[in-house]
Amino acid sequence: MSRPQRRAAALDAARGAGAEALVCADPANVHWLSGVPVAIETGPSPFAPPPVLVLAVDEPARLVLAVEDLPAEAPDGLELVPYEGFGVGPPRGLQRAKGLLSAFAGGRRVAGDSPLALGLLDSPPGYVDIGAELGRGRAVKDEEGLAEVRRALAVTDAGQAAARAASAAGASEVEVLGAARAAMEADAGERVALSADLVAGRRAAGGGGAPTSRRLADGDVVLCDLAPRVGGTWGDSCAAFAVGEVGEEVRAARERVAAALERAMEAVRPGALAGDVDAAVRKGLEYPHHTGHGIGSSYYEEPRLVPGAGTELREGMVIALEPALYTDDFGIRLEHVVRVVPGGCEDLSSHRLEL
Amino acid sequence: MSRPQRRAAALDAARGAGAEALVCADPANVHWLSGVPVAIETGPSPFAPPPVLVLAVDEPARLVLAVEDLPAEAPDGLELVPYEGFGVGPPRGLQRAKGLLSAFAGGRRVAGDSPLALGLLDSPPGYVDIGAELGRGRAVKDEEGLAEVRRALAVTDAGQAAARAASAAGASEVEVLGAARAAMEADAGERVALSADLVAGRRAAGGGGAPTSRRLADGDVVLCDLAPRVGGTWGDSCAAFAVGEVGEEVRAARERVAAALERAMEAVRPGALAGDVDAAVRKGLEYPHHTGHGIGSSYYEEPRLVPGAGTELREGMVIALEPALYTDDFGIRLEHVVRVVPGGCEDLSSHRLEL
Repeated sequence: MSRPQRRAAALDAARGAGAEALVCADPANVHWLSGVPVAIETGPSPFAPPPVLVLAVDEPARLVLAVEDLPAEAPDGLELVPYEGFGVGPPRGLQRAKGLLSAFAGGRRVAGDSPLALGLLDSPPGYVDIGAELGRGRAVKDEEGLAEVRRALAVTDAGQAAARAASAAGASEVEVLGAARAAMEADAGERVALSADLVAGRRAAGGGGAPTSRRLADGDVVLCDLAPRVGGTWGDSCAAFAVGEVGEEVRAARERVAAALERAMEAVRPGALAGDVDAAVRKGLEYPHHTGHGIGSSYYEEPRLVPGAGTELREGMVIALEPALYTDDFGIRLEHVVRVVPGGCEDLSSHRLEL
Repeated sequence: MSRPQRRAAALDAARGAGAEALVCADPANVHWLSGVPVAIETGPSPFAPPPVLVLAVDEPARLVLAVEDLPAEAPDGLELVPYEGFGVGPPRGLQRAKGLLSAFAGGRRVAGDSPLALGLLDSPPGYVDIGAELGRGRAVKDEEGLAEVRRALAVTDAGQAAARAASAAGASEVEVLGAARAAMEADAGERVALSADLVAGRRAAGGGGAPTSRRLADGDVVLCDLAPRVGGTWGDSCAAFAVGEVGEEVRAARERVAAALERAMEAVRPGALAGDVDAAVRKGLEYPHHTGHGIGSSYYEEPRLVPGAGTELREGMVIALEPALYTDDFGIRLEHVVRVVPGGCEDLSSHRLEL
């Protein structure tokens, strides 16, 4: 059976249960029916639901997914329906996904495969979602939350040191990340889930990505973003390492990004507006993402340092600052995490930022 | 703010939105409000939803969760409400969770934090869940599915070899798992999500668990169960390694488990009943879990080899076989994955099963 045949059989099962359409949100079923290996390791995304497959009689099989979840190649016989999830605009991924699913499946008798499928389809009267409000509530860290972030960042520091040490010519990207992860788990004394970019050379020009078996070579710049989850709390970090000798262009770019991170640390203080900090840091640099974001029980929380954001920074917020510069040949991003304190901020990260 | 204070503020937010109760299923909110670090790395469990927090005025904060998700200690001020998720009985975790949530939140105006929370609460007329039926559909592997499992198992074999090589006196459990994972990612040329048990000595007496910083010592038996996810498809495996010299009791136990695995391979054939295979393998051994299970797009699929299971094995099914023996001092489980072929089965795993 090919995947299109599997889908035909699944739709038959839905019709046998009295439905006209089938909506699958369980990653196991989505992979089985579409071939797309839905990312699971970092848990539910703060930006958008996972890819959802919609099957209906006499219609193409549709995979509704955030742009960042698009597979490298469209699988056989599948229509990809992307929407904006992650970005610098307001977080509306959930709303967009629900709108698309309603357009494709709404008004029919629907079969689903999981509570998540049902929750994405349904909007009963009397139910109110306060997920966004809870997210804002998480932004200011109390003593316990701060202690948890400090612990996660100590583990993160250990990972950055190990990745730097492993980034030698001949090592592969996955081997470098493997060394970083092993060091973090040894430091934490427990397994850690991990969100990470680990790419070198031109692959870093796009801002990041997952490691492959590509081997490092002299002159490469390794972009290493590590966000481990330690006991339920996320750390975050980024650095760029030079393999062997790198040229003047790389060194100059590194200085510009380091200066931007300094500007960020000077701009963060109680009462500052998130959008103003973003503007001060972004000046003269081009990067297609946020300047920073909160971390804690999620790897991406309020406040979001994005253009125009009106959020006022408050004492106790914990913010990852990550200005960057990407060229056609390499990418450099430097990220430390700070805590907003009276009159300014305290740097909570200790990992090195040199090339 | 303590976690009870956070919960009071969250419930206030729900009341401000017109609700009388709050149901949180997003792992970030559950961690933030309860302190329980919900497991995320292996994605949605085939056995049960993740822990769900229910808050209501004048009632204790309740965390509704499967027994296997119970934290080591009950967090401050939280009532744990466990139900059976994983087990050898019929898979009814979802049904049990929904029943408990309905008992605690039903009949009230409810606020939730995510589509999953809504989907767990709601049972609209006209919606039908066919998740279980799709799961049965995944059981027989077609050519593409078999190729994916073979690739995942080759990666798994590499992980078992690395874990065995790293299991020396002085190495910590997390270090051993780190070495295994690094080897698997190097072999796969990509990151892999990982479900794993890695425990040694008396910690293995319970059948498994997550690695800690405990260091291996001569005489330890390391229980190593590795289930990596390669491109959306899961492998599975288990072996037990002796660190230095082990006694006669351990060697005799290993022989009994190896004989049980042989019996399993002899019993698996088209037309055999899952429950009969379970009985033949379990004879004379005591282990509190299944004898085996399907793998594929999920790490636990049909057929389930459990007592009394009436499922007839069919050609093309792929089954992990994992008899075990646990004493007060050590645990041994041996697991290979087989494919049902005409007249018997083919062993798809290559990792070593010696002590």
